[in-house]
Amino acid sequence: MHLSAAGHDVAVSDNMIRRRYDEELGASSLVPIDTLEQRLRTWKSVSGRDMGIYVGDLTDPVFTHDMVADFRPDTIVHFAEQRSAPYSMIDQAHAVHTQVNNVVGTMNVLYAIGDIDRDIHLVKLGTMGEYGTPNIDIEEGWLDVTHNGRSDRVLFPKRPGSFYHLSKVHDSHNIEFACRIWGLRATDLNQGIVYGVETDETALDDGLSTRFDYDGVFGTVLNRMVVQAVLEQPLTVYGAGGQTRGLLNIRDTVECIRITSESPAERGEFRVFNQFTEQLSVEQIAETVARAFPGQCQIDHLDNPRVEAESHYYNAAHTKLIDLGLVPHLLEETLIDSLFDIVKRYRDRVDTSTLLPNVRWRETSNQQAPTR
Amino acid sequence: MHLSAAGHDVAVSDNMIRRRYDEELGASSLVPIDTLEQRLRTWKSVSGRDMGIYVGDLTDPVFTHDMVADFRPDTIVHFAEQRSAPYSMIDQAHAVHTQVNNVVGTMNVLYAIGDIDRDIHLVKLGTMGEYGTPNIDIEEGWLDVTHNGRSDRVLFPKRPGSFYHLSKVHDSHNIEFACRIWGLRATDLNQGIVYGVETDETALDDGLSTRFDYDGVFGTVLNRMVVQAVLEQPLTVYGAGGQTRGLLNIRDTVECIRITSESPAERGEFRVFNQFTEQLSVEQIAETVARAFPGQCQIDHLDNPRVEAESHYYNAAHTKLIDLGLVPHLLEETLIDSLFDIVKRYRDRVDTSTLLPNVRWRETSNQQAPTR
Repeated sequence: MHLSAAGHDVAVSDNMIRRRYDEELGASSLVPIDTLEQRLRTWKSVSGRDMGIYVGDLTDPVFTHDMVADFRPDTIVHFAEQRSAPYSMIDQAHAVHTQVNNVVGTMNVLYAIGDIDRDIHLVKLGTMGEYGTPNIDIEEGWLDVTHNGRSDRVLFPKRPGSFYHLSKVHDSHNIEFACRIWGLRATDLNQGIVYGVETDETALDDGLSTRFDYDGVFGTVLNRMVVQAVLEQPLTVYGAGGQTRGLLNIRDTVECIRITSESPAERGEFRVFNQFTEQLSVEQIAETVARAFPGQCQIDHLDNPRVEAESHYYNAAHTKLIDLGLVPHLLEETLIDSLFDIVKRYRDRVDTSTLLPNVRWRETSNQQAPTR
Repeated sequence: MHLSAAGHDVAVSDNMIRRRYDEELGASSLVPIDTLEQRLRTWKSVSGRDMGIYVGDLTDPVFTHDMVADFRPDTIVHFAEQRSAPYSMIDQAHAVHTQVNNVVGTMNVLYAIGDIDRDIHLVKLGTMGEYGTPNIDIEEGWLDVTHNGRSDRVLFPKRPGSFYHLSKVHDSHNIEFACRIWGLRATDLNQGIVYGVETDETALDDGLSTRFDYDGVFGTVLNRMVVQAVLEQPLTVYGAGGQTRGLLNIRDTVECIRITSESPAERGEFRVFNQFTEQLSVEQIAETVARAFPGQCQIDHLDNPRVEAESHYYNAAHTKLIDLGLVPHLLEETLIDSLFDIVKRYRDRVDTSTLLPNVRWRETSNQQAPTR
């Protein structure tokens, strides 16, 4: 919708699998969402603009090829991946599903571009989680290294924290290769943790709302804590809380996509943008929510279900999108402006049994997770 | 057989897919090979030692889990991957098959170890091709980096040259993660290009022979050139020939597996050995074959079907296996001792139509390749 509002001709492709994950997990979006078809009708009525739909699965090579050949886009914004780290760590089947779904879908997009029009710009959703938490500054995708007196520009070394994050590392390597051998142009958006639910476009009509996940599997940390605050439950920090991550508002996410699409990578270029606006530890996120919330907040520390450093150096570059014109929304003003209000509006829809983590990284099977 | 001869109790698992690739490509091993079952009977007759068989596919999680639970090995030597770069570049279906087969098979092995006995040492076949050709010295898996005044030990940055090589990069990241979160012990053997056909064990009986591939898809460069020399055909160098790679004799391959298995990694350790003994350019390989061959040899340069640097810096560490006791066989003496003789013995089995490359990296489909 953000691209459509900016004057671009847009088609959307979806296999609807995110809704099936909800059924599997017994979870659902805090904010009720219409079907894709209904949302596009609503968008047409409020904006006057049409949007195409291709329902199918990127892991189907024929579907993917035919869709690209039919629509002939200038840009493919590829966000169509299983996107939850805990989901990928439920058990073996979920880990394998995540890697196959994400890697094969991306390979099929690369081959479709390679076959049909190598000028198409691929804008691919990566994650800041690909980097892990190295003891050196994180650069945007590439690193200038000097070793034994010689120098090279290399892909930034990755050490991610889940089979989901690993799937994105695999994608990044595959995409860089396709740029190198086929001369494709690609931008990998290594996105931080998204929070918020409203954009300029969703605000136009309740029927345009997008998902807001707060459960232990698909909910991101800040969204979940805002729900906990509104419900007067303790904000739950995993472990010591020193885990530091990049965050950004959903409004900035859609704006980054527009900016990136309108300034494509060069032919043969594998370009990486670190897509976040603020860097905070989980403890700081909890403290920010507690400070902004108009009421009392307790912060609880849980045994960390993940395997991750809970106290570490973290300093990640994120200037390239700013250089292209991104004007960030700041966390504290967003919280006060809208996020608490939206959660309050839908507080009766919260299923508190889904808030706490039940997927444990050290286990090879978490049998209880999908049937909670 | 090499591990069995060294006194270990061995079982072998195979899905027989390599033989199906032959049928697809219309190619076959220069040296005739018996069925697995017959080879194990022959091994029993010459050595007196039994070996178990598990016929099945590592991409089947139940098969893999049950096999590991049944045999309860101390060590899993995992070489069960699609191993040809040109095969992975035939077209989209072959690229996807290679990555899914290799990544899922390895994930299933990791989960089996994680579930059944985290003390099992995984010895995994990687490839020197994972590194690509960086302008800095290649270390063994890890790199000490200093950046902006801070230091870390990171996974060596990878920039491989085919979807096959990429599948091994994906494996390496997945394995490192499993060591980190589950405390597994793993050694990644980043192997160079293997040449030769005979080991101490295969030499005991013709019925123990292993494959010798010389075709443009599965044949490695030195094996193919030896066949070209014996047939009095030009040795074919792709492009300028400055592509430098690590090589090793098949006798050293099996010895590296024994050495690695008998000196396992620590719990939680992701250990990488660069498994090659000599470093040569493709041009130097051709010149070595020409020099060693008792006859005339012409060297031809073909248009390079691959996308790769044809003149580059290359200096790769390979001391860890030497430190553990590997005594390398040298290329020139091996050629003179045995390789030409074996090829001469089977020269009537060569299908010369399979010698030249017909898979081109720049194309997204090489329709002719499988139906040559």
